[in-house]
Amino acid sequence: MTKNRLEAFSDGVLAVIITIMVLEMKPPQGASLAALRPVTPIFLSYVLSFVFIAIYWNNHHHLLHAVERVNGATLWANLHLLFWLSLVPFTTAWMGDDHFASCPVALYGIVLLLAAIAYYILVRTLLALHGKASTLAISIGSDRKGKISIAIYVPAIPLAFVRPWISWICFIAVAIIWLVPDRRIESRISRQDA
Amino acid sequence: MTKNRLEAFSDGVLAVIITIMVLEMKPPQGASLAALRPVTPIFLSYVLSFVFIAIYWNNHHHLLHAVERVNGATLWANLHLLFWLSLVPFTTAWMGDDHFASCPVALYGIVLLLAAIAYYILVRTLLALHGKASTLAISIGSDRKGKISIAIYVPAIPLAFVRPWISWICFIAVAIIWLVPDRRIESRISRQDA
Amino acid sequence: MTKNRLEAFSDGVLAVIITIMVLEMKPPQGASLAALRPVTPIFLSYVLSFVFIAIYWNNHHHLLHAVERVNGATLWANLHLLFWLSLVPFTTAWMGDDHFASCPVALYGIVLLLAAIAYYILVRTLLALHGKASTLAISIGSDRKGKISIAIYVPAIPLAFVRPWISWICFIAVAIIWLVPDRRIESRISRQDA
Amino acid sequence: MTKNRLEAFSDGVLAVIITIMVLEMKPPQGASLAALRPVTPIFLSYVLSFVFIAIYWNNHHHLLHAVERVNGATLWANLHLLFWLSLVPFTTAWMGDDHFASCPVALYGIVLLLAAIAYYILVRTLLALHGKASTLAISIGSDRKGKISIAIYVPAIPLAFVRPWISWICFIAVAIIWLVPDRRIESRISRQDA
Repeated sequence: MTKNRLEAFSDGVLAVIITIMVLEMKPPQGASLAALRPVTPIFLSYVLSFVFIAIYWNNHHHLLHAVERVNGATLWANLHLLFWLSLVPFTTAWMGDDHFASCPVALYGIVLLLAAIAYYILVRTLLALHGKASTLAISIGSDRKGKISIAIYVPAIPLAFVRPWISWICFIAVAIIWLVPDRRIESRISRQDA
Repeated sequence: MTKNRLEAFSDGVLAVIITIMVLEMKPPQGASLAALRPVTPIFLSYVLSFVFIAIYWNNHHHLLHAVERVNGATLWANLHLLFWLSLVPFTTAWMGDDHFASCPVALYGIVLLLAAIAYYILVRTLLALHGKASTLAISIGSDRKGKISIAIYVPAIPLAFVRPWISWICFIAVAIIWLVPDRRIESRISRQDA
Repeated sequence: MTKNRLEAFSDGVLAVIITIMVLEMKPPQGASLAALRPVTPIFLSYVLSFVFIAIYWNNHHHLLHAVERVNGATLWANLHLLFWLSLVPFTTAWMGDDHFASCPVALYGIVLLLAAIAYYILVRTLLALHGKASTLAISIGSDRKGKISIAIYVPAIPLAFVRPWISWICFIAVAIIWLVPDRRIESRISRQDA
Repeated sequence: MTKNRLEAFSDGVLAVIITIMVLEMKPPQGASLAALRPVTPIFLSYVLSFVFIAIYWNNHHHLLHAVERVNGATLWANLHLLFWLSLVPFTTAWMGDDHFASCPVALYGIVLLLAAIAYYILVRTLLALHGKASTLAISIGSDRKGKISIAIYVPAIPLAFVRPWISWICFIAVAIIWLVPDRRIESRISRQDA
């Protein structure tokens, strides 16, 4: 039951985050195709953020699927993750408004990095609760994707001051790593369900 | 369980989309009836979009009712659908602000078309998972309504540059097609439940 | 299951409506107590609307508690109700911005009236599905409160053009009628549960 | 079931509140680090409010975990709590916009105080329903934290007119009191579950 409500609240917060970001895309002045031009960077930022929030929802979902119980520490580790994700609409709007200038792109990367660290802490908290022999521990394994993501975010932040598009390539690289489905967990779960 | 969470997240996103659209209807300047005049096109756009999101919620609900399991591909096909629907508040606001000019109406149609294609992909993904002999496959049948909708959206987009109201007639036609209840699925399900 | 998802979606929409209304209360210019003055009518409108949405959530909850099944007509009757309620943030904002001028107050009343009628239709649709001998039919009885509300809203709308505060007294009267708990349904249900 | 829907609606409202607050953090004008400076007080206010809403969600969750049934009075006591919490985005925005001036900080404290009183009423309503020998009554005990919070809020409000940062220290003190996990309830529940 506790786990269900944790999922329900997280789903609610993620659903609101992913949807209110679109409010930052103000309808353009004028009705011509050209009027859409200044909206383009905001739209691209929106797409990237939508994909990231969607990845977090997906991972969160897979993670909690394998979880058997939660405690107070888990609730706060989860809220900590939601805190950083709740800042994504703000960093997305700034990055889009300023056509991918260095500072906003770096801040976007910092928030993604802090969210990745928060996710890592959530995973560790759950592992501490379930023990090394649990389905959860086996499914997560060495959590390579999580570690690689952090390893990519760290250089992506200073690189925004060299060329912001290099940071963007880093962000897209992380997204692609996660979009390739994590066969291990799924196969492990379906094997166990069988 | 996985299916429940997919439904819960989709419900959350659709509930937020359908509700935040109303934020684009800014309270008019002045307290007279005449002050409501400029709000009228925004209100009409809102009604149309409310009906479309409601139809998607309804169809999504019926579709998942017949679904037995979901996998990673389903989750992403569903998120892809939610992405296009999340753009509806933006296109609705632009269309309303510019009193049904050609470009905004065409963009509105494009987003509806892409959402319809995303829904089609979601249905295919679920069918691939359940097989041709499943309740799902039998309930969906030839998916005539889905195909007709796409066939109406495609000409509706260029027609916005001839006369925007012709596109509106197309959109309303699609809405009416879906509002007529899909007796087949309901009867099939209730027969099976019995 | 279908009923659960109807409840979940309605809860989502009502939760968003009740919460985004507060976004219309813009933080005042200046940091003095006097700066709060112009916010007062917006705050009072917000309180009234919060109470009305809360009443609808409560009634909706009690209504569906006694419901055994839903069909396509129910889903649309429910969406119709949510449509009128989704306009409440708009009418609330207009009424608050214009310090209770006649037109905004009348429009506020019209939306409440249409929501009340939509609720009445939802009740009828559910009764038609469950039959006269059902727990639902017995719990609802003659639906006196629903009918009285409509009877109060109808004169409240034109009275806004005489004195807007008369309409407000009508709205508050309806709210009080509903806030007095409907002992009949609760006692009926708890008796049946026993 | 009634309890589930109470939880679902509360989760929805709290999820929206916690997320829309970020909309008050408007993307800064300009793309330099210096442009972030004026956003700092808004960000700090956001962090404080996020923590408070998170604490309420957590407490609400623990409270309802031990609850066995709810009635009409509970539903309204819960809505009363949600009402005061729904004002948090407004007071947060005003406090942030005006760089922690006396009036906004005092109003922020007033809303927190009223929310704390509303939570106290909710607890009393649930206790009245469950009786002194219930798991709920034993878990809550003397509700020391609730009483201490109120005792801190009361002086914090006038102190905002002496030095606003003294009020902030009070608010942070309350947050820390709650962040220290309430071992009693958790241990009581897990003992009972065992």
